[in-house]
Amino acid sequence: MTDAISLAEKLIAAPSVTPATGLVFDVMEAMLEPLGFEVHRFVKGEAPDGPVENLFAIRRGPDGSKHFAFAGHLDVVPPGEGWTSAPFAPERRGDLLYGRGAVDMKGSIASMVAAVAEVPAEAGTVSFIITGDEEGPAVYGTRALIDFMQERGETPDLCLVGEPTSVNQLGDMMKIGRRGSVNIWLEVEGTQGHVAYPHLADNPLPKLVAILAELDALVLDEGTNWFQPSNLEITDLEVGNPAHNVIPAVAKARISIRFNDTHSGASLSETVSAIAEKHGGVAKPVISGEPFLTPPGEFSQIIADAVKAETGIDPEPSTTGGTSDARFLRAVCPVIEFGLCNATMHKRDEAVAMADLETLAKIYARIAKAVLG
Amino acid sequence: MTDAISLAEKLIAAPSVTPATGLVFDVMEAMLEPLGFEVHRFVKGEAPDGPVENLFAIRRGPDGSKHFAFAGHLDVVPPGEGWTSAPFAPERRGDLLYGRGAVDMKGSIASMVAAVAEVPAEAGTVSFIITGDEEGPAVYGTRALIDFMQERGETPDLCLVGEPTSVNQLGDMMKIGRRGSVNIWLEVEGTQGHVAYPHLADNPLPKLVAILAELDALVLDEGTNWFQPSNLEITDLEVGNPAHNVIPAVAKARISIRFNDTHSGASLSETVSAIAEKHGGVAKPVISGEPFLTPPGEFSQIIADAVKAETGIDPEPSTTGGTSDARFLRAVCPVIEFGLCNATMHKRDEAVAMADLETLAKIYARIAKAVLG
Repeated sequence: MTDAISLAEKLIAAPSVTPATGLVFDVMEAMLEPLGFEVHRFVKGEAPDGPVENLFAIRRGPDGSKHFAFAGHLDVVPPGEGWTSAPFAPERRGDLLYGRGAVDMKGSIASMVAAVAEVPAEAGTVSFIITGDEEGPAVYGTRALIDFMQERGETPDLCLVGEPTSVNQLGDMMKIGRRGSVNIWLEVEGTQGHVAYPHLADNPLPKLVAILAELDALVLDEGTNWFQPSNLEITDLEVGNPAHNVIPAVAKARISIRFNDTHSGASLSETVSAIAEKHGGVAKPVISGEPFLTPPGEFSQIIADAVKAETGIDPEPSTTGGTSDARFLRAVCPVIEFGLCNATMHKRDEAVAMADLETLAKIYARIAKAVLG
Repeated sequence: MTDAISLAEKLIAAPSVTPATGLVFDVMEAMLEPLGFEVHRFVKGEAPDGPVENLFAIRRGPDGSKHFAFAGHLDVVPPGEGWTSAPFAPERRGDLLYGRGAVDMKGSIASMVAAVAEVPAEAGTVSFIITGDEEGPAVYGTRALIDFMQERGETPDLCLVGEPTSVNQLGDMMKIGRRGSVNIWLEVEGTQGHVAYPHLADNPLPKLVAILAELDALVLDEGTNWFQPSNLEITDLEVGNPAHNVIPAVAKARISIRFNDTHSGASLSETVSAIAEKHGGVAKPVISGEPFLTPPGEFSQIIADAVKAETGIDPEPSTTGGTSDARFLRAVCPVIEFGLCNATMHKRDEAVAMADLETLAKIYARIAKAVLG
């Protein structure tokens, strides 16, 4: 089998702090072309959320064959300080391969490239949907790739996203859905005045406190079979009044709601707006993702079988955690996420067990073959 | 009678944005010495709250005679922009004299100087307790003057503070007390984390909201015969978390309480601390003044009679409004505040009715004579 570890090293060695461009895509292209892939690269968008480089690679199977897509990102979060070895100089120490992106998610991309090398071209169509901006604003990344595919009529039957979903050991968790996410800015306007003459002022802070107390007491739901209860966090408060004897004119706050599929971004925005308005405030929501679920079924079973065959583990189908580009891909076809252990993602000394890269390549190969069927 | 208007012009013409030093004190000294006053000037304190210039002037009456003190400040708040005439070039337009300090409180100092010229030296002891820092930190101002007087054994029997207490017309209000003031900083510490994994974090914001909701619901008291109800205002909120997906580690707020003599700064600090601690927060109080009351009686009657005789008005004995240096002087002897109309104090185009300066001089002369005699 192609050496997934060496492929991961090549990808890590190409620095690609978000947004990724150039070299790391050259490396990726050089891996895929010998395997028979038609590689398309394009740059999309303008400042401040662009430009962003993307890659769509496809190896077509016989007419009428199934289309299995693998989605991921080549950009990484900034390495930060204090690494034991240079973050973009992959280093093998003991059982581990160190480097920024080792698990999130150059490692899984390398494993999928190694896997695809094992899948006969005649088994069906395989594609890579790879963006250079998943860790950043993600405005011109996977969304632009979806537009690109739709313009060309490329519609995968199933899509596997290679995010690091495993928790304690490779294979213990896959993500069959994700919660939605909405951030809501709250603002109450009052009338400035002197604290000694409160009847001449209209203090907006007690109103904001009343809004926040009511929001904090909300029970959004009790969770579902597949989702944990939706959760609301107050994330910021802002007045900025240095004068001890002044009642300020404006008070602001921000909340963040992660919600399951018993809500939509719009329904929650309405709920919060009504509470804000009741106390004289206004709410300005920005929905960053709707919840999605690929209910357990054929696709999740294929993944579970592949994981079980290679590791002996039954992966838990989960919907926990943050958002990923799966929130966009869900509009195209059923999506499940499965990848490496996430313990070191976004951290100093990010590392992957080299054995996991090889096992993951075998799991991915089983999945691809089973999906293409 | 000495011309109070001309004296006010001389004081206004000496710029004295807080802290006042030098020239304006020279002008004051030159007014008092010809009237037989022994003038003491001294500078106290270091940066950041000093140095501050102060003046204590005394004209002693016969042994055993009463001691009437007048307290005030020569510093003024910054003029700001947009004046019709230069703020430190006193200008008579129509019935008004314009200039920074016209009502707060160079005008009333001028009226008292004019008044004292009418009071025979043998009537009793008269003193001026004049600071250059009432509008600023007030750390080395009136407090230092009180120390100075105590070291020399000078103890007035009664003290009149010349703050602008009149509201709609000269004589309609005197201040027989002031509320206390305490600012309290509230802080709740939590554990930072990602909004998608709230179980790994400890959000301090709902705790702060709970503290503030409970504080806002407090009814401190219903007021007293002489004081309005104590009042609590939330004056600031601060988190400063720009990251939408991060639960912040610390949340802060500030409240300001103006309170009557059913409380002390310490008792309120304890009440607020207990509420903060109940919800996992801490409270850091800074008491800027305790409440005081000079209950209506002989002194207030003297003032009321003098006002009535010159204006026909019965002054309302009030305890409303902000704090003044009376909060320090109350420790020395009974204190009441009475002065010009406060409508333009601290504002652009501060002005005093010239007739009011003359009437106030007559009122002050009646008060001084009545107190001494």
